[in-house]
Amino acid sequence: ATEPTVDLAEAEEFLRLHHAENPELGPVEHRLAEVHAEVAATGTYRHTPDELTFGARVAWRNSARCIGRLYWRSLKVRDLRDLRDPKEIADECVEHLKLAANGGKVRPVISVFAPDEPGRAAPRIRNEQLIRYAGYVGSDGGVLGDRRNAELTEKAVDLGWRPPARRGPFDVLPLIVEREDAEPALVELPRDAVLEVSIGHPELPWLAELGLRWHAVPAISNMRLRIGGVDYPAAPFNGWYMGTEIGARNFADTDRYDLLPYLGKRMGLDTSSVQTLWKDRVLVELNRAVLHSFNEAGVTITDHHTESDRFLTHIKKEEAAGRSCPADWTWIVPPMSSGITSVFHRYYDKRELVPNFFPGDTRGVCPVIH
Amino acid sequence: ATEPTVDLAEAEEFLRLHHAENPELGPVEHRLAEVHAEVAATGTYRHTPDELTFGARVAWRNSARCIGRLYWRSLKVRDLRDLRDPKEIADECVEHLKLAANGGKVRPVISVFAPDEPGRAAPRIRNEQLIRYAGYVGSDGGVLGDRRNAELTEKAVDLGWRPPARRGPFDVLPLIVEREDAEPALVELPRDAVLEVSIGHPELPWLAELGLRWHAVPAISNMRLRIGGVDYPAAPFNGWYMGTEIGARNFADTDRYDLLPYLGKRMGLDTSSVQTLWKDRVLVELNRAVLHSFNEAGVTITDHHTESDRFLTHIKKEEAAGRSCPADWTWIVPPMSSGITSVFHRYYDKRELVPNFFPGDTRGVCPVIH
Ligand code: HEM
Ligand code: HEM
Repeated sequence: ATEPTVDLAEAEEFLRLHHAENPELGPVEHRLAEVHAEVAATGTYRHTPDELTFGARVAWRNSARCIGRLYWRSLKVRDLRDLRDPKEIADECVEHLKLAANGGKVRPVISVFAPDEPGRAAPRIRNEQLIRYAGYVGSDGGVLGDRRNAELTEKAVDLGWRPPARRGPFDVLPLIVEREDAEPALVELPRDAVLEVSIGHPELPWLAELGLRWHAVPAISNMRLRIGGVDYPAAPFNGWYMGTEIGARNFADTDRYDLLPYLGKRMGLDTSSVQTLWKDRVLVELNRAVLHSFNEAGVTITDHHTESDRFLTHIKKEEAAGRSCPADWTWIVPPMSSGITSVFHRYYDKRELVPNFFPGDTRGVCPVIH
Repeated sequence: ATEPTVDLAEAEEFLRLHHAENPELGPVEHRLAEVHAEVAATGTYRHTPDELTFGARVAWRNSARCIGRLYWRSLKVRDLRDLRDPKEIADECVEHLKLAANGGKVRPVISVFAPDEPGRAAPRIRNEQLIRYAGYVGSDGGVLGDRRNAELTEKAVDLGWRPPARRGPFDVLPLIVEREDAEPALVELPRDAVLEVSIGHPELPWLAELGLRWHAVPAISNMRLRIGGVDYPAAPFNGWYMGTEIGARNFADTDRYDLLPYLGKRMGLDTSSVQTLWKDRVLVELNRAVLHSFNEAGVTITDHHTESDRFLTHIKKEEAAGRSCPADWTWIVPPMSSGITSVFHRYYDKRELVPNFFPGDTRGVCPVIH
């Protein structure tokens, strides 16, 4: 599952970038020679801590699908490359969540575990995000919880996870960390590692009684961080939430919590025809509820209007720094009220750059945004 | 402004397509030979009426930005290729609008006027759509009417148009038809050629008092229809409206009528922060008003939910017919509540096909959706 040896051209390009953007490091030649020698001898090379930090931040900066890149320099990088043991990795993910949640003042953090090496595949985190709610498939095909995680839930049960006696729609799944030559680790997230917000609505009191909740820290854990030709398959990272991710996707998608039909009825709307725009009305109220609840709870969240403006500021700053800013319109533009956000009304540069994050099930580098 | 001679490869490809999709026409060889000879002699060729009809319909079928393609076979094609006189063309555009409006039961229609020929450029319609509302720029830079048409309004005045004594936000501009070697024609649209709908809201009675209105027939008139290598620069076409075009773009865009701030205040919403999602709430109510008003008036309109489902049906039908369906995600996905429409959750084929419609200020064929 690993590449034979590191791509030297990609390594060199990265090292040159690192030195070019950090003039205080001086000329790159010495470091290039070092890395050439190390790759010749071992097939790979080890980033300096400074390279790792820079590389992870630039990977965020290059994430064409991410609207939240204005603060890319602020990413806190945890250097945990010496960890290869699944259980130890899972434990450090727990630590990650606490650091990131920070009592509500959410901080962008990445934890970088062991990289792939020639002949030795690194461990991988099976969960798509560090915090995922179980999806229990009933005998009728209906699902209690998050339908998206049905397979992960099954996998956890196969590995010995015992769901709570009283199953609910928001049961936090255990972490599953796998390594080719080791037993997978199954580690429950302790309650104090999972900051959550109860969802209520500023004007619809009955909404709070539904028991909806969501977690504060969105930490993607199944993407491969690639820096200078080196792959880090276990490198969970988090920002804070943009409200639409929860209100317009997690709660609304028909293959997630699919709440619109129920809420439409509870709101007393005419759901006899889509032309009444009842879905659109519920969608707005659900998103108001999410933003309102996070704000009330003192948990960092952003809205799609603010974040759109920030993203355009980010592009301006990048261009002022002489860099292009790759962006994927279909991901950057928010999934609701898109026409009235500032990011809708223009096109973006489509060339992918490295360092970057890639889907966990891919290899190498993909140069084009599709 | 015209190409020297018709691209024979493109002509041939089109003729083969025409015969392949219409087996009753028999083998294509005879027609190919005819066209080869005609192009050799004149630099171009004349489509048969049947080719014109087929070509225009397939141009619609290939319009990657159009969500409304399910009914592409129903396009009514008006063969007006012998008209080159600007005034006569404008008069036939008036006729087009009446046919299309059809007392409210809107019909998709295209009127094809003279094509470009080697050494003889065809007439062009200056208006972006046949019906456009004036935008009067005040001395303070403010605009009465549709800001998008400020330049066209100025142009019309330059050509001698006299705005109404009492200028309003919905003054219909005259048609302007231009030809290199002729005086431009300036023709007012008679009242009975412009079916309009007054906008009211099912629950907010004050909205009707604002005097908002919109026209029933969206007829794009500045795109170049290209069939088998022949360009028809004046070929206005119309479908019916999807509500979001009016409610989420024309009325809402900050460089159009920019109604959200005013309506937000009138609705009594807390506009102190974008986080209250007041813009999103106004947007939904405005779009409800549009759909409601067209329905009440008995004027054809579609909503973005219905149309998204229809478009996916269209793709299925195209694929069943062995064809790919080019589509531009950024245009197909509606500008509001996009995440809860069915077209959001997939990608599309990006290869552009001909025949097609191209922006009026371009030349030739563009093979990729950007
Ligand atoms: C600081 C606040 C942040 C905000 C508000 C933010 C916002 C977003 C949003 C809204 C998306 C689209 C998600 C979806 O539709 O599923 C996204 C995607 C993404 N973001 Fe961010 N982000 C933030 C921080 C970060 C950080 C710290 C990183 C990496 C270090 C990052 C990397 C990415 C990547 C790689 C994707 C694409 C994920 C995929 O392909 O599934 N973001 N971001
Ligand atoms: C029958 C009902 C129709 C509906 C509901 C419909 C819907 C739409 C919508 C919503 C757009 C996007 C408009 C925008 O965002 O500005 C669009 C674009 C387009 N449609 Fe349709 N359409 C219809 C009929 C037609 C017809 C009859 C044709 C041609 C014969 C056509 C060709 C196009 C083209 C070329 C575009 C792109 C326009 C541009 O690039 O500015 N459509 N359509």
